[in-house]
Amino acid sequence: MIRFECDYGEGAHSQVMQMLADTNMEQTPGYGEDAYCEKAKEYIKKHCGAEDIDIHFLVGGTQTNMTFIASVLRPHQGVVAASTGHINVHESGAIEATGHKVMPIPSTDGKIYAHQVKELYDEHWSLSNHEHEVQPGMVYISQPTENGTLYTKAELEALSAVCKACGLPLYVDGARLGYGIMSPANDVSLNDLVRLSDAFYIGGTKQGMLFGEALVIVNPALRRDFRYILKQKGGMLAKGRLLGVQYCAMFKENLYFELSDHADKLAMKLKAVLAELGYSFRYESYTNQQFPIMSDAELAEIGKKYAYSFWEKVDESHSAVRFCMSWATKEEDVDALIEDLRALKK
Amino acid sequence: MIRFECDYGEGAHSQVMQMLADTNMEQTPGYGEDAYCEKAKEYIKKHCGAEDIDIHFLVGGTQTNMTFIASVLRPHQGVVAASTGHINVHESGAIEATGHKVMPIPSTDGKIYAHQVKELYDEHWSLSNHEHEVQPGMVYISQPTENGTLYTKAELEALSAVCKACGLPLYVDGARLGYGIMSPANDVSLNDLVRLSDAFYIGGTKQGMLFGEALVIVNPALRRDFRYILKQKGGMLAKGRLLGVQYCAMFKENLYFELSDHADKLAMKLKAVLAELGYSFRYESYTNQQFPIMSDAELAEIGKKYAYSFWEKVDESHSAVRFCMSWATKEEDVDALIEDLRALKK
Amino acid sequence: MIRFECDYGEGAHSQVMQMLADTNMEQTPGYGEDAYCEKAKEYIKKHCGAEDIDIHFLVGGTQTNMTFIASVLRPHQGVVAASTGHINVHESGAIEATGHKVMPIPSTDGKIYAHQVKELYDEHWSLSNHEHEVQPGMVYISQPTENGTLYTKAELEALSAVCKACGLPLYVDGARLGYGIMSPANDVSLNDLVRLSDAFYIGGTKQGMLFGEALVIVNPALRRDFRYILKQKGGMLAKGRLLGVQYCAMFKENLYFELSDHADKLAMKLKAVLAELGYSFRYESYTNQQFPIMSDAELAEIGKKYAYSFWEKVDESHSAVRFCMSWATKEEDVDALIEDLRALKK
Amino acid sequence: MIRFECDYGEGAHSQVMQMLADTNMEQTPGYGEDAYCEKAKEYIKKHCGAEDIDIHFLVGGTQTNMTFIASVLRPHQGVVAASTGHINVHESGAIEATGHKVMPIPSTDGKIYAHQVKELYDEHWSLSNHEHEVQPGMVYISQPTENGTLYTKAELEALSAVCKACGLPLYVDGARLGYGIMSPANDVSLNDLVRLSDAFYIGGTKQGMLFGEALVIVNPALRRDFRYILKQKGGMLAKGRLLGVQYCAMFKENLYFELSDHADKLAMKLKAVLAELGYSFRYESYTNQQFPIMSDAELAEIGKKYAYSFWEKVDESHSAVRFCMSWATKEEDVDALIEDLRALKK
Repeated sequence: MIRFECDYGEGAHSQVMQMLADTNMEQTPGYGEDAYCEKAKEYIKKHCGAEDIDIHFLVGGTQTNMTFIASVLRPHQGVVAASTGHINVHESGAIEATGHKVMPIPSTDGKIYAHQVKELYDEHWSLSNHEHEVQPGMVYISQPTENGTLYTKAELEALSAVCKACGLPLYVDGARLGYGIMSPANDVSLNDLVRLSDAFYIGGTKQGMLFGEALVIVNPALRRDFRYILKQKGGMLAKGRLLGVQYCAMFKENLYFELSDHADKLAMKLKAVLAELGYSFRYESYTNQQFPIMSDAELAEIGKKYAYSFWEKVDESHSAVRFCMSWATKEEDVDALIEDLRALKK
Repeated sequence: MIRFECDYGEGAHSQVMQMLADTNMEQTPGYGEDAYCEKAKEYIKKHCGAEDIDIHFLVGGTQTNMTFIASVLRPHQGVVAASTGHINVHESGAIEATGHKVMPIPSTDGKIYAHQVKELYDEHWSLSNHEHEVQPGMVYISQPTENGTLYTKAELEALSAVCKACGLPLYVDGARLGYGIMSPANDVSLNDLVRLSDAFYIGGTKQGMLFGEALVIVNPALRRDFRYILKQKGGMLAKGRLLGVQYCAMFKENLYFELSDHADKLAMKLKAVLAELGYSFRYESYTNQQFPIMSDAELAEIGKKYAYSFWEKVDESHSAVRFCMSWATKEEDVDALIEDLRALKK
Repeated sequence: MIRFECDYGEGAHSQVMQMLADTNMEQTPGYGEDAYCEKAKEYIKKHCGAEDIDIHFLVGGTQTNMTFIASVLRPHQGVVAASTGHINVHESGAIEATGHKVMPIPSTDGKIYAHQVKELYDEHWSLSNHEHEVQPGMVYISQPTENGTLYTKAELEALSAVCKACGLPLYVDGARLGYGIMSPANDVSLNDLVRLSDAFYIGGTKQGMLFGEALVIVNPALRRDFRYILKQKGGMLAKGRLLGVQYCAMFKENLYFELSDHADKLAMKLKAVLAELGYSFRYESYTNQQFPIMSDAELAEIGKKYAYSFWEKVDESHSAVRFCMSWATKEEDVDALIEDLRALKK
Repeated sequence: MIRFECDYGEGAHSQVMQMLADTNMEQTPGYGEDAYCEKAKEYIKKHCGAEDIDIHFLVGGTQTNMTFIASVLRPHQGVVAASTGHINVHESGAIEATGHKVMPIPSTDGKIYAHQVKELYDEHWSLSNHEHEVQPGMVYISQPTENGTLYTKAELEALSAVCKACGLPLYVDGARLGYGIMSPANDVSLNDLVRLSDAFYIGGTKQGMLFGEALVIVNPALRRDFRYILKQKGGMLAKGRLLGVQYCAMFKENLYFELSDHADKLAMKLKAVLAELGYSFRYESYTNQQFPIMSDAELAEIGKKYAYSFWEKVDESHSAVRFCMSWATKEEDVDALIEDLRALKK
């Protein structure tokens, strides 16, 4: 079975593993206060083209989202997100468990737009009894989204401007940020995120590391006492240097981006063939995840040899599915899939 | 100005006030452990036609909802409700503040239906990774709804059957329960609620009392230690007998129902005239709240003399508004309104 | 049975009841936005000798404490309190339920002292890994304490100075504030509380009202969006004018203080006789609550005719008990008790 | 500098690292549903001598404690613990953040005793108004404690019996469980924990793994839906097999115990010399952590070459400190320390 169903099926890239092995018996202080974490922060700052940012390393995405969001909001505030957003549908109520409502904006492609945030904000404050409703307190988006779509720089600038005008911190979930940055359709850089968001995270788990998410807090007002909340929510790794070491391996040079590029290129190759063969797509993705709509008969055939993720039923006999490329995907496996897809259509 | 904008504008019915005055200097134990609370529970049990129910008196609706819901759910569970439900939109995130998601079912009239609950439940449990999503843990409805609509007995039986089959406690918000019970369109009795729900509350605040909501816990499995949570959430009134006394006044005989009947009759009178004059209604309400759609010009004219609640814009020049009758509404005031409405149409 | 076991056994003072009756059928806006609440705030401001304070009316003490404390603290912060403090031992974990630790300072008389707060603060910040412990975020005291003891002005000034120096808001629970203010041993005025605390509440429930606590937020930084949290925690009374009306009755002139004075005078009368008869006291209280230590035999005898509260065992055959005077206590009842106490000793 | 200040300074044992490297490019399902996790559970069950236990792998100790405790308690319940317990003092309020009070029992050596739990329980239920206080809902202990002390089997049996009698689940924090089990003073086995506790965890982070804690839920009533809460609290590792693999390496044979034994033996060697040299100990520890009391002058001298943890001031010129042995400690380093300690005394 050749597996395309997710981008976290393997361990970590060999350079990451090597550096973990090389540093294994060194003694370092715990809880992220070691030299590797410091070094990794320097590398990331350089890649971001920014000095004055605050970086924390966490283990997973749900943990990062709930910890940061809980650190920002006051008790009566909620976090605005796409109805399809990870925090709204795939984190088992982690945000609500910290006391806050996720305030969904209807979305079909995973994105929300500046005017929608403005409308929600204006509607809230236009109420005479606004204190009877949850107050919007920040905005959460994903880049790329859970559906592989991307915010353009112009869209992000518009969103950022509205958020600033409304006093709503803008937070970007970057679980697959590398795959977004290296997409041929992308025009948003790390430096743009520093410029346009209040915080974002650079995902590691799905990008070639064993685990790890690097939270970048840009807005100085949101940094105070973050490590307390990190500890409280269970996100402060005792051997924190494991995160530092892995991010060093990734960001010392360009490994993070090279691995992302590899996955995106394979995804574009597959996408081109699928389009050529006449398949339509559930989402217009130019990142590592592709969501073609295929007939159940075709899926049954392909499923004999390849693992994919079921996404949703489209009609009686068709479904949208996900093929996921990653840093670990072999080109020969994609080629084999392409060949079998072509065969199907003959 | 004659006021129809809500049903909590006045104090309490004179019999309630009298009984508070009569008992004022008596000394009783605190926290609801007095003889008046005991008596009131007996009266309510008689009206419910049920002996084995557990009754607690609370001060307000938001408090009652969040306290009971928090007492039922485990941390990973959410409460299913109409998207328009009071807990979803008008309680400032009280449910989320106790750690739980409100799981909205789209609704335009305020009601949710058995098949919708079943679908939501089945969809959750059909997921291979269901533990990544909030688990439906109970169902919340309002009778009548915030929009004045009513569940029929058949609808409630269907909902109750699904809830039982799915292991989801069914909880009924009865902030205006009296107005629902006495509606000419109603076929759901207190005893039906005992039979079909796991818990419900009999609202007092909007029904002629100074304040007070009587929570009836039917399901024995949901009763354990409720008074701890009542105290913890700030809902245990020190002079609890104030609630007992008021409910005694209301339920010793039939005052609660007579006052509701009064309001409903006036509402039906107004409704009939509005219909006759050609107005349509935003919701099909046969309870004390009426939601006609009127032109902005008409509303401006009526607004000079009568207070109503704005509900929502319907089109460029029309809005849905709410006229609210209550236990305290005077028939002469409704007649004056009717006369002025007729004059408008001439 | 003559009852001295608590100060919330009766309803409300006749002037309070009268004003509720007089205003009963008036129509007012809900949720505390009526003219009576406005008026009551003016009266209270005048009594406080302060214009720039923010006042909110709540129903009960636990509700007031948890709502205000939750509105002040960030997620990783706790509230410092005497180990005997109401929030630490008698509120069913209400503070913890909002996510915060109560950080107890050992106390035998109910009071905590400036140096203790400073030590706790210094100890926290001296830790190299302070983010592994709860950060002290505010200080809670009661005036008078649950044991009837009083902070002197000098003690309060010292505490206030330390709190300011440490950046810890100081919050004063005034469930029995009137009994404290009118105590012959007291030198702390309402104006002192405005000057020395960040917030305090003026208790009504135990002071002659049906219910009600007036929260005074002095520090402007702690006022923002408080009404949201008030609503969220279930503390926003629909017919908020009931609180306004009662506080009007109490604070238009000096009723609040006259009633307190009445109770304190009776308590001093009883205290003098108890001392004269050779009883010692568990706490040095000069307020409405008295805590004599009596033999079990004496208590059995007294208990035939008078209700008191058991406080704690002192030794094999003696217990500390509480006799509570209130606005409603009749002098003749105290005289009867005194006579019987004297008879016991003959 | 030779480091003895903690037991999480290095990475992982070479066999653990090797197995991670060997399995690195395998593709497995995520979230702990892979074959390595299954295998590891089998091995652990065998070591526990129990089939019917439920095992979950988490990343860290704070996370494990707060996730399990939150899954057990109802909103009004607290967790009973030693005042020195990790959850009470070193987890930044993680338990309170999930809504629950830690109910401390005073302790100087880190242990609590059956009679103390019984007293706390009886005191709570003897209150007439017990619902005004937090209800004890479960008991938390550590084996070994944070101070290196051990519960004997007899003590644990007594505690377990009281907990069962009171209906309080007993949960054992085993962050250093291996060091406890292999202690020469220990008579509590894994199988005893299965027999006597409702749940416990087998720590990995401090025992030779990169990270990882194996939660063993013994009581079937406490297992339901645990994975939801695991996900919600951020504890479900995407590449869950990393935990499975590490526990396989540790528990396939006896590596976990061999490594613990190594550390304990070195600790006993050091302890014997310290005692011989006349030092007293802050705690009577027979596990990997030793807490001698030394003069500040001696500590200054030793500190030039060896890192230790400061624990607490004992008097003007003496402090208790911690020397920590671990799976990674080299005997030659301990020998060097011993030699220098002897030299000090000459």
